Amino acid sequence: MAAAADSDPMESSCEAEDEDSLEEEAEEFSSCPHCSELAQRQSEQRKAGHFTDLTLMFSIGARLHSVAAHRSVLSAASTFFSELLSAQGSASSPGASGAPELRTPSSGALSSGIPSSGAPSSGAPSSGTPELRTPSSGALSSGTLELRAWSSAPDLSTVEAVIDYMYTGHISVTVRNVNQVLELAHRFLLVDLKAFCGEFMMRRLTLKNCVPVHSLALTYSLERLSNKATALIRKHFHKVIHDKEFQTLPFHLVRSWMADSEITINSEQELFQVLVDWVNHDKEEREEHFEELFGLIRLTQISPVYLSRVVRSQSLVSSNSTCLQLVSEALEVHAVSLEHLTLADVGLYS
Amino acid sequence: MAAAADSDPMESSCEAEDEDSLEEEAEEFSSCPHCSELAQRQSEQRKAGHFTDLTLMFSIGARLHSVAAHRSVLSAASTFFSELLSAQGSASSPGASGAPELRTPSSGALSSGIPSSGAPSSGAPSSGTPELRTPSSGALSSGTLELRAWSSAPDLSTVEAVIDYMYTGHISVTVRNVNQVLELAHRFLLVDLKAFCGEFMMRRLTLKNCVPVHSLALTYSLERLSNKATALIRKHFHKVIHDKEFQTLPFHLVRSWMADSEITINSEQELFQVLVDWVNHDKEEREEHFEELFGLIRLTQISPVYLSRVVRSQSLVSSNSTCLQLVSEALEVHAVSLEHLTLADVGLYS
Repeated sequence: MAAAADSDPMESSCEAEDEDSLEEEAEEFSSCPHCSELAQRQSEQRKAGHFTDLTLMFSIGARLHSVAAHRSVLSAASTFFSELLSAQGSASSPGASGAPELRTPSSGALSSGIPSSGAPSSGAPSSGTPELRTPSSGALSSGTLELRAWSSAPDLSTVEAVIDYMYTGHISVTVRNVNQVLELAHRFLLVDLKAFCGEFMMRRLTLKNCVPVHSLALTYSLERLSNKATALIRKHFHKVIHDKEFQTLPFHLVRSWMADSEITINSEQELFQVLVDWVNHDKEEREEHFEELFGLIRLTQISPVYLSRVVRSQSLVSSNSTCLQLVSEALEVHAVSLEHLTLADVGLYS
Repeated sequence: MAAAADSDPMESSCEAEDEDSLEEEAEEFSSCPHCSELAQRQSEQRKAGHFTDLTLMFSIGARLHSVAAHRSVLSAASTFFSELLSAQGSASSPGASGAPELRTPSSGALSSGIPSSGAPSSGAPSSGTPELRTPSSGALSSGTLELRAWSSAPDLSTVEAVIDYMYTGHISVTVRNVNQVLELAHRFLLVDLKAFCGEFMMRRLTLKNCVPVHSLALTYSLERLSNKATALIRKHFHKVIHDKEFQTLPFHLVRSWMADSEITINSEQELFQVLVDWVNHDKEEREEHFEELFGLIRLTQISPVYLSRVVRSQSLVSSNSTCLQLVSEALEVHAVSLEHLTLADVGLYS
């Protein structure tokens, strides 16, 4: 080192080479907490109304609640919002003209929707198209997005929680809010959150809630939950049919259960009584389905006495010629087999 | 189970209790990749100009380059931006009137700033206050923020990389861009990134770059880097002073080194020559500092012959009475000690 001291050892000739080799050594820096801190701060901004450029309007009960948010975050977190807002977002300046004005009739049918109070009345969840309003040109850029047609009437705290999830990736799910969270997650296409709701319900699946949970699972295409609920219902069908929940099932599910060859029941007679109860629960709507469902009962496994005295005299049966015919056929099968039995007894076939 | 089948076992009396105990079991759901995916998508939005509501203008060389971004993200990522934009952000609608109009004179002094080409000329980095422009009322909300007074004239790709870091927490740092990244990180108060730049430089600290790296470390208050560079410079000061880099050091650093009692040098004579070279490198600016720095040389360790023939005849010395006085005093010390030595030789003090 001493010898080279005078000749400027750190300079000139070999510098280019050294520099090149050093330049190849790029280092990647990733700040681990950066993204979660960023998300947390954007969430705080939203709560404080800082830099928000979109107002979401939720029909909650009879009232409209508004929640301010950032288009950028909602679009980044949710395909639902990114597709909805993309027409606007392509202009670098929000509030520019040309925003889509999507309108949909409000379906208005709001059910309470907690697990023990009944399943949604239709097979597919409402995906009511939201209405995107923009102010007239020249006004500020804060557009308004109205979200209607909820099957589980979300309360404001749950809406806030799901929006906050879109910001932070974190949410607290409870038995009380899981149905609403699930509907919001489904609507906003939050796949991970939706899957979590399914697992949450799976861990709490009991005989008491398996019927409505099964309906929800079908509604939101939660296959594993649906399969597990189905297995539970099949095994305990003779108990489940006495639940209030069963009375609230829609026709297609009752038909599906009655046609299921794996359900366990005490007797076909019991099944007949449950069917009558289900129809009478909303006779006006359900009477038309009686004939089809009655056809699913194995009448030949009901005793001739019960068939002729109870089944045939039930007004839903006696007023329907197809049902009466089925009862007659069943009685005929009984008569023939009884005759065989009697003849066997007296030794003709021995 | 069979016995209870008729009494509706999953309903009524005990339901409230069960529900309560279940409700206590809230589950926290955290989607691990959510935040990083969110960040990635917001970064993609920025590149596509989606939902951006701020234009950053960078003076790069003689030209202005603009980069579109989201106020929300910049504010969430950087205290610099959050403080700057907060006056605007408190209104839920960006583009509202009342935005601050901060102006600062452009300092214009742009140096190339890569490690081997020289340190910033002043001790403290320029933190030129940016200019925030908003359009006249009624126009769109996209404000413009002009960022001037860079000491290392950032190139557009580095600016893009640092802005992307604010979105994603990820950046690729190279020897080529580290100075600019450091300046941007310092200016935008990105503490983690700044610290990483310091570590990056520390891993590449060599005799060849220790002088400018030390200057940078002081400029940006990177204490560990500064300490490590100081130790290296002290140990090899006799080599370092022959670097071109040393010639570009500002006065306060040259004084600091010359006053440092821990530097290793071959001779005070060499130090004198380096001082003369440093002053002559920019004589007009530096001549005024010669006297103070000359006072730091241990003249009594230079031989009388060199003092009288070379030092005293150097024009910087001969034109300065204080310096001439110092040389005379040193020669006097030499004369006295030489006399003592001679007397000792002839046995007077034996």
